[in-house]
Amino acid sequence: MSFSPLINNLIAALRCLPGVGPKTAQRMVFHLLERDREGGRHLAQALEEAVTKVGRCHQCRTLCEESLCYLCNNHSRDQTVLCVVETPADVMAVEQTGGYRGVYFVLMGHLSPLDGIGPEDLGMDLFRARLEQGEIKEVILATNPTVEGEATAHYLAQLVKERYIQVTRIAHGVPFGGELEYIDGGTLARALVARAPV
Amino acid sequence: MSFSPLINNLIAALRCLPGVGPKTAQRMVFHLLERDREGGRHLAQALEEAVTKVGRCHQCRTLCEESLCYLCNNHSRDQTVLCVVETPADVMAVEQTGGYRGVYFVLMGHLSPLDGIGPEDLGMDLFRARLEQGEIKEVILATNPTVEGEATAHYLAQLVKERYIQVTRIAHGVPFGGELEYIDGGTLARALVARAPV
Repeated sequence: MSFSPLINNLIAALRCLPGVGPKTAQRMVFHLLERDREGGRHLAQALEEAVTKVGRCHQCRTLCEESLCYLCNNHSRDQTVLCVVETPADVMAVEQTGGYRGVYFVLMGHLSPLDGIGPEDLGMDLFRARLEQGEIKEVILATNPTVEGEATAHYLAQLVKERYIQVTRIAHGVPFGGELEYIDGGTLARALVARAPV
Repeated sequence: MSFSPLINNLIAALRCLPGVGPKTAQRMVFHLLERDREGGRHLAQALEEAVTKVGRCHQCRTLCEESLCYLCNNHSRDQTVLCVVETPADVMAVEQTGGYRGVYFVLMGHLSPLDGIGPEDLGMDLFRARLEQGEIKEVILATNPTVEGEATAHYLAQLVKERYIQVTRIAHGVPFGGELEYIDGGTLARALVARAPV
């Protein structure tokens, strides 16, 4: 590539965004410089500010710029039910169902010994302290239905049970709206095992 | 959406990038905040700097931060052959062929009366002045092979011919490596008309 140094630099910098390769980055740069400099300036400010100021909620570990996130700080939420998820995006996914009134704990990952991610990286000290406050009556494990997510759920379940607190796992089964023919065998097998009386 | 205000703001700001919708923007934000804050900070700086400092070459109108771009400023280039393209990305496309040693003129668009884009928006004053300097011996029209690109090439051809300067258009024909079966009829028809003796 042989654009001007500032353009080359911006193309390279855009590659830090997931899913952005050299051609896409080039297209973005020309779009911004030719058609939307105001948008580019605004993006630079929003980015600088978010990267500098967004930290983690001291209680649930989700991303937020205050010491307590708006969910932990919301006293109309049921503070006795704790839903454990892997990422802030999962918090949003559960919130969008509109059916959950409790609070969250965000692991920011899952157990993955091969990548060197152990319990201490998932905020287990904070999680244990939360359980020992004695306020929590139920812990819902909503980690991903993947091998690592299941292993993490298993680990957390032990930890919660030891403290005689109720612990549940979100249901596995056939997704709503799907067709049996196209659902993978593992999911269907679990759905059969976990069948419920009508 | 109901993340923290700074996160919401960044998600909205990222939507100014072409091809980035709400889900992609959300994924980018979480990636940057959870895994690559340094990259985000660097991107913010590169963006701010490019948006503020990148202007246009005073001679060829391409995007660059100096008053003359590195191609116009390169005296080993043949300053008597002028290739007219629509965008800075097209300059790169021609440069990457490695076969062109002349200089460029960048229209920054094409004639499009419906969008209110007339000759004055394509730097025609600068283009005429360039022709009248008397240095240019050939103008190569490399606007896109689209309806607007062809119309623009036609307009430019008139302008150059009036000044008794040689004017050429890049060849239309079947793209190299393609199969006739899959080439559109219009292209094939033009390739037949423009057939050359072997």
